[in-house]
Amino acid sequence: MANRLTFYIFFLLCLCLGLLCVVFVTYWNAVWRGGFAWDGSSLQFNWHPVFMVTGLVVLYGFAAVLYRIPYTWRYDKTPWKLLHAGTLLLAFIFSILGLCAVFDFHNANNTPNLYSLHSWIGICTVALFALQWAAGFSAFLLPWTPVDIRKVTKPLHVWMGSIILVMSIISCISGINEKLFFVLKANVNGTRPYASLPPEAVFVNTFGVLIVAFGLVVLRILYNLKWQRPDPSSDGDGYRSPVLYVQISSLKLLELCVISPIIFYSSIITTI
Amino acid sequence: MANRLTFYIFFLLCLCLGLLCVVFVTYWNAVWRGGFAWDGSSLQFNWHPVFMVTGLVVLYGFAAVLYRIPYTWRYDKTPWKLLHAGTLLLAFIFSILGLCAVFDFHNANNTPNLYSLHSWIGICTVALFALQWAAGFSAFLLPWTPVDIRKVTKPLHVWMGSIILVMSIISCISGINEKLFFVLKANVNGTRPYASLPPEAVFVNTFGVLIVAFGLVVLRILYNLKWQRPDPSSDGDGYRSPVLYVQISSLKLLELCVISPIIFYSSIITTI
Repeated sequence: MANRLTFYIFFLLCLCLGLLCVVFVTYWNAVWRGGFAWDGSSLQFNWHPVFMVTGLVVLYGFAAVLYRIPYTWRYDKTPWKLLHAGTLLLAFIFSILGLCAVFDFHNANNTPNLYSLHSWIGICTVALFALQWAAGFSAFLLPWTPVDIRKVTKPLHVWMGSIILVMSIISCISGINEKLFFVLKANVNGTRPYASLPPEAVFVNTFGVLIVAFGLVVLRILYNLKWQRPDPSSDGDGYRSPVLYVQISSLKLLELCVISPIIFYSSIITTI
Repeated sequence: MANRLTFYIFFLLCLCLGLLCVVFVTYWNAVWRGGFAWDGSSLQFNWHPVFMVTGLVVLYGFAAVLYRIPYTWRYDKTPWKLLHAGTLLLAFIFSILGLCAVFDFHNANNTPNLYSLHSWIGICTVALFALQWAAGFSAFLLPWTPVDIRKVTKPLHVWMGSIILVMSIISCISGINEKLFFVLKANVNGTRPYASLPPEAVFVNTFGVLIVAFGLVVLRILYNLKWQRPDPSSDGDGYRSPVLYVQISSLKLLELCVISPIIFYSSIITTI
């Protein structure tokens, strides 16, 4: 019981930190950076941190800890698998939109793409994420994948998942740090330099610390052995039989995999 | 046997990547950034990345994976504990020297300290490292610490250890990214801008990727359950009795804890 309580405290912390990250990145770009547009200007660039943090860090982190919720253990794993895959797909779509925002901005301003260390780590992260999603889909959602392959693949899948989160956070922190040096310069549009720690700098540095804290809480939840979903009996990672998959109509699959997460996260974003 | 072979392949990879990181950071600062001095100039700043990467990433990572070497399992844990603590102490000394280098440089040039996100994460990392070392020393090296406390503390110690490594890597990547934007500007001392990817940028970006790869290999070694030192029988985390500690003379303690690591790493650095 105490174990469950501790889990739910960490889970609540994870949710709060994740939502705070989304609030902070949106507020920063909406208020201090002038808002949003899709016209090749710096207002288009502002979508980049919002999409990357929301997708590659927050939604990704929420999807990662989904299986650790004890409430889900009493039910068949399949719908949770689909929610996991669906949330990650949404996170991936956000990441691609975030990349489009920065590539468009660079192209419109004749700035080369992918030259900084931030961009090198970032693009590797998104590429690994794409590979991980495709491999996870093939190994755990296709009904004809042999149970043995699932069992062998699972620790690697969890491992790669946490590596990608760590790389996302490295990318975000280096990108935020770079952005603050770019925009907080003396005598540019009346701003104070970064070194004098104007309110925007304090706010965004705090936001960076929140991202790191969120990532560490997610990793803590993932790697606490006591919080892992109990091993399935002999059904190969919660996979009962191909019949189960046939029972899930394609409409239900679409609903669980894509529509539900979109409605869920849209409602959160709208509330914010 | 196959398990051990895989471990040693990963361990060799960890050693090679770690040494490559030290070579890359030293070469970058010695050749491209003009070398080293301790006079408040930018040559003093050059010690900062060298000390931080060597201490807070490479030595730290080497110390972390020490217990995973199967060769050490046949022996009493005490000398390995001391080597672990000694290497980490050396890593901590390097980190403090790295901080002194940058603080001195800032003070000499009237630049404020600790304003960037990089510095916020970095200083938190070093502070956590100091706490972790002191807590680890109290819990695992003081002979009068109860065995129960060691057992409870151990997972937290391993967890905090890996958190600190992740934070070190975040700090390093954001710092390297920031430094490249600072120094690679058009028309400054004939350098080409970062965006045109001059040879220095490619070299240092590659170095950044090596740091991330090193960190991920260390974390992979730490979190593979098959590579963990088998549980001690009933001696409380390899701790036999206080008598063992009395048997280790203070001279031997000094030798194992401080002198051996210094000789070992000095020889590596001299070879480089």
